[in-house]
Amino acid sequence: MSEFEIIKNHFSRDYDRSDINVGVGDDGAILNIDQMIGSQLVVSTDTIVEQTHFPEGTIAGNIAKRAMCINLSDMAGMGALPLWFTLSLTLPGDKANEAWLSEFSSGLFEIASEYNCALIGGDTTKGPLSVTICMFGNIPSDAGLKRSSASVGDIIYLSGSIGASRAALELLSKNGNVSERLLKLFYEPTPMIDLGIKLRDIATSCIDVSDGLVADLGHICRASRVSAIMHLASLPFDEEVKLLFPDKYTEFGLSGGDDYQLCFTVPKHLKGSIESISTQTGITLTAIGEIVEFDHTQSITINGLEDQLNLKGYDHFE
Amino acid sequence: MSEFEIIKNHFSRDYDRSDINVGVGDDGAILNIDQMIGSQLVVSTDTIVEQTHFPEGTIAGNIAKRAMCINLSDMAGMGALPLWFTLSLTLPGDKANEAWLSEFSSGLFEIASEYNCALIGGDTTKGPLSVTICMFGNIPSDAGLKRSSASVGDIIYLSGSIGASRAALELLSKNGNVSERLLKLFYEPTPMIDLGIKLRDIATSCIDVSDGLVADLGHICRASRVSAIMHLASLPFDEEVKLLFPDKYTEFGLSGGDDYQLCFTVPKHLKGSIESISTQTGITLTAIGEIVEFDHTQSITINGLEDQLNLKGYDHFE
Repeated sequence: MSEFEIIKNHFSRDYDRSDINVGVGDDGAILNIDQMIGSQLVVSTDTIVEQTHFPEGTIAGNIAKRAMCINLSDMAGMGALPLWFTLSLTLPGDKANEAWLSEFSSGLFEIASEYNCALIGGDTTKGPLSVTICMFGNIPSDAGLKRSSASVGDIIYLSGSIGASRAALELLSKNGNVSERLLKLFYEPTPMIDLGIKLRDIATSCIDVSDGLVADLGHICRASRVSAIMHLASLPFDEEVKLLFPDKYTEFGLSGGDDYQLCFTVPKHLKGSIESISTQTGITLTAIGEIVEFDHTQSITINGLEDQLNLKGYDHFE
Repeated sequence: MSEFEIIKNHFSRDYDRSDINVGVGDDGAILNIDQMIGSQLVVSTDTIVEQTHFPEGTIAGNIAKRAMCINLSDMAGMGALPLWFTLSLTLPGDKANEAWLSEFSSGLFEIASEYNCALIGGDTTKGPLSVTICMFGNIPSDAGLKRSSASVGDIIYLSGSIGASRAALELLSKNGNVSERLLKLFYEPTPMIDLGIKLRDIATSCIDVSDGLVADLGHICRASRVSAIMHLASLPFDEEVKLLFPDKYTEFGLSGGDDYQLCFTVPKHLKGSIESISTQTGITLTAIGEIVEFDHTQSITINGLEDQLNLKGYDHFE
């Protein structure tokens, strides 16, 4: 199977969209941006690699879904509406077959369609299995949710619950039984696109929780030159993970990473807006702490936690 | 070394550019596109993988330069002016050190500065060495050079010469002596950005020669529903390669790939414009054939070549 056939058979879709002039199949895509006057372009990219981000033998559809979801999550973290994406697929010769590629592209386009996000280009190369997606979205000018604007006194919120992805990975790597629910949270974490959009005028800062809650809130603190206090008792740990890992769920939730929830800060007087958004979207939004003056000795304090050591995010290079 | 430190120490640059609102360091980059009214956005992506696209042990700076140059070449093939790029770097633990990263980022920014192209984001992950760049540029609306508009009677042109990259790879893989000149053509093929821009109003179709001349001209033919005739005697094979590989230079040039020259078609009456562009830019532009009516038995005919078999581009999956 040639690269041309791979692209033609598995990654070409006809989109009836006025924003796409040239899509897959040329040296590059050509996008119409004239209709985007008054908005800004948002770009992010994330790579997942076999054995680093998913176990060997993961079914192709799940790899594709996870790659899409975590990239869409970056759009959510910026408050952006996803539009297009490119796919760089590196795969070993034994996976360049109809069965594997069909399953991969089904998973990919299932998530892409759900978010109305069009594949505009990419590259297929031979090598150890990895997937890089570059995602594009837009936001009204100056409405982007950055990491750098949290203010002292802001309430810190977290969407959904934490700990499930790390627990799923633990179970997968030990060949243990993993519930369908945890598997889905791992391979197909729901990108919080609607929530991000609704937070545009309300949140002072926002990040998607990919490295782990402590690490990612730390990124907000560092970028905003503030510190944060969280309250252990208020943190929304996943209930199934609590039962499965009574000794580890705190660690999984605080530094496990890959939950792809949104962590964001909101001025106290807008607390009511957050309650409305939670009601509208059906997404649990939990107040987990507050932003305080910058403290160079302690970026993040967690009230109620005895052992503050070893609380950092997941970093593949450490 | 953490991922945060890698990015902060090696991949953060302060750009004083009005088109970049948020660059490296958030969930995504935010780009100002309001000033791009009347133009279209061009996006392309290319991945290079160790052992597939460059030999093990290649110095970091050369890997970075090659990744940049081949992605810039896609912009040239579209007639676009490069603006921004994202970098997805997957590297094994033993390369996540100051020396390797410094050398890599020096090479990367050396080429990026030359083309005034800004790094706006990326991802650093642990795994087998590979580099994916996603490149962004712009073109005046409807001025993009596509593959699909070649017409019967058009003259086919090729910039520079062909065969050098494939010859360099052959010598590298055999641990042979490779001249500095061939090494540079392999690791740092000059992206034909100026030429692409000058061809906007002149060429009917254009492609950068990455898969090999026959394969890439084949892409133009397929997209334009035409056939092509080339004349062996007029093809600009690299002179050094002719001397080094008297029996193989034809194959290297026709199907070796990775030369990153532009192959383009021009209506006969604009021949004079091509001569002017060649004089202005100092780039040799050779008429190598002409576009003919679609012939389903023979997409590309090469007059003067005895053996028409096995003439296809380099495809890692075949």
